[in-house]
Amino acid sequence: MAEKNYSYERLFDFTKALFKKIGCSDEHALLATQTLLSADLRGIDSHGIARLSGYIRLWEAKRINATPDIKIIHETPSTAVIDGDAGLGLVVAPFAMKVAIEKAKTAGTGWVSVQNSNHFGIAAYHAMMALEHDMLGIAMTNASPLVAPTFSTDKMLGTNPICVAAPAGAEPPFVADLATTTAANGKLEILQRKSLPTPDGWVQDKDGNPSTDPHILKTGGALLPLGGDRDHGSHKGYALGAIVDIFSALLSGANYAPWVPPFPAYVPMPAQQPGKGIGHFLGAMRIDAFRPAEEFKKSMDHWIQGFRNAKTIEGADKVLVPGDPEREMQAERLADGIPLLPLVVADLESLGKRFEIPFS
Amino acid sequence: MAEKNYSYERLFDFTKALFKKIGCSDEHALLATQTLLSADLRGIDSHGIARLSGYIRLWEAKRINATPDIKIIHETPSTAVIDGDAGLGLVVAPFAMKVAIEKAKTAGTGWVSVQNSNHFGIAAYHAMMALEHDMLGIAMTNASPLVAPTFSTDKMLGTNPICVAAPAGAEPPFVADLATTTAANGKLEILQRKSLPTPDGWVQDKDGNPSTDPHILKTGGALLPLGGDRDHGSHKGYALGAIVDIFSALLSGANYAPWVPPFPAYVPMPAQQPGKGIGHFLGAMRIDAFRPAEEFKKSMDHWIQGFRNAKTIEGADKVLVPGDPEREMQAERLADGIPLLPLVVADLESLGKRFEIPFS
Repeated sequence: MAEKNYSYERLFDFTKALFKKIGCSDEHALLATQTLLSADLRGIDSHGIARLSGYIRLWEAKRINATPDIKIIHETPSTAVIDGDAGLGLVVAPFAMKVAIEKAKTAGTGWVSVQNSNHFGIAAYHAMMALEHDMLGIAMTNASPLVAPTFSTDKMLGTNPICVAAPAGAEPPFVADLATTTAANGKLEILQRKSLPTPDGWVQDKDGNPSTDPHILKTGGALLPLGGDRDHGSHKGYALGAIVDIFSALLSGANYAPWVPPFPAYVPMPAQQPGKGIGHFLGAMRIDAFRPAEEFKKSMDHWIQGFRNAKTIEGADKVLVPGDPEREMQAERLADGIPLLPLVVADLESLGKRFEIPFS
Repeated sequence: MAEKNYSYERLFDFTKALFKKIGCSDEHALLATQTLLSADLRGIDSHGIARLSGYIRLWEAKRINATPDIKIIHETPSTAVIDGDAGLGLVVAPFAMKVAIEKAKTAGTGWVSVQNSNHFGIAAYHAMMALEHDMLGIAMTNASPLVAPTFSTDKMLGTNPICVAAPAGAEPPFVADLATTTAANGKLEILQRKSLPTPDGWVQDKDGNPSTDPHILKTGGALLPLGGDRDHGSHKGYALGAIVDIFSALLSGANYAPWVPPFPAYVPMPAQQPGKGIGHFLGAMRIDAFRPAEEFKKSMDHWIQGFRNAKTIEGADKVLVPGDPEREMQAERLADGIPLLPLVVADLESLGKRFEIPFS
């Protein structure tokens, strides 16, 4: 199970070539690669190149369109709905975020709900697009149903992440990117590989009993909303996941709740499809639609320094500001390469053979 | 400790008369009363009439202005910043929400950040104002610092609630109103009165050790962010509370983080005041800025019915949809009256005597 490091450039070239092989334009292949690998750089290993073969299998199953005609189907000064034409979410979501940013330039804010898309990688990539425009960025998406609401055994929601990115001045930006579950599915996958138990409050079995078995989803179990159980606020995690579903899919006309298409291509599509594809929600707020950007950034610096200098619990190294661990990871991985598990390498080698792009 | 029921009308007349006595206009007294008592009706006892004497004490300490000149100090087509002129948040926030709704009518969405305000009661009151306009409503506020971020012993954030309200068709609206802590301060107060221990993950002591003592905040302890500890996702609750602070105070120029003015008038103001008063953030999204309202509401009905009909864990009565418990409580309390603890009644009687408005 020893990991081996691969340079970002090498993984970039391979991934981009592969997206081109399935028919993506050069522009789309470049964008999809940037989006996908931003997960590996930031240390969200579950959402990066480890999922590349999954995206390819969805394309083979004709559930991803490599040459989508992404378009605005409705709009107002501050809103738009976009039809992703079953394209890669890795490409559709940045398109939508650009529309949100353009709207914000004139209307102050821009809000885009997306239907007929696919998985979009990490939410942070999209939200952070707003930063260079002196805007706050917001990104969320619904996802395959893996999460049981409080008091239920049915998997009704995805891990439905929310990201908010806000620029600072001298300090690096605030970037909070969180699944609305106690733990993201990727964290569970890490424990599965190591055959380690989960902390309590992460999963339940098929009857709704507490469990610490990381494999429990294979036998009808479910991930739990942030909070874990009612006493610890799981109804709040459930409500947050529901809000993401409403903004991403009910506002756009995408599939929602247990009817969201599954990521693994071998899982059959739900018999009922109340909407089209997967839904996202992207937002951009121009800082100076509220307050001069320099004033805001100075306050953000003061805010961030306040948290960094807060007194720590004994044994804790420091108080983190959202975005700190991912930024540190990115610096490290750009310098030393991205560690891949042998399982992931084997998967990429096999992809490489089939598409005649040697991986190693 | 036996509770006694009081009719909504009776509490309404008393509260409105009291707000008039401190100098509120008839219009403001009416609005402040509606806002405050919506908490009692919905069963959020900690945020309703039990806090009336606290608001009065803030007025006596000259930290609440009964005759505020609430005004827009900056705006774009979809945004505004409002200066609450140190008014009751119970009045300032509805003013701001009306501005958000008006903006949404023309721009599709409206987003208002508020500075120089005070506590605004329950977030749900403000978010729900959007419903009758076929809009989604969003409300959040920062609050007195009671919450320690992950790995810290310092109280850096308030319980910073988020509410999202979305209309449905045949079904009642979806209304999710949640403090970004494991448990709201009001839940803690209930256990304090009964001298019962808290579940784990609600509070920590002054050194950051886990605690189940509901009185622990009096000896330097803190409330914990939703999740409780790092293993259970407290960094997510902390991030959510931080997002509320940024939207409510950093965008508006209000006080933030540990520098938010405390609610109890006897607690001295923080020496450092980086902004003005307390901050709120209100949003309204016109449904048909995205999709025909009737289509959306039909989907919401389908969504809600899906959750109501989800399979329950053995022993659980039903799967709840956010807003269900509060709506049921409101129907019950409008019919049977609002139960008040003897302590609260004594407090109101004493207020009544001082202001020559007999309470009982």
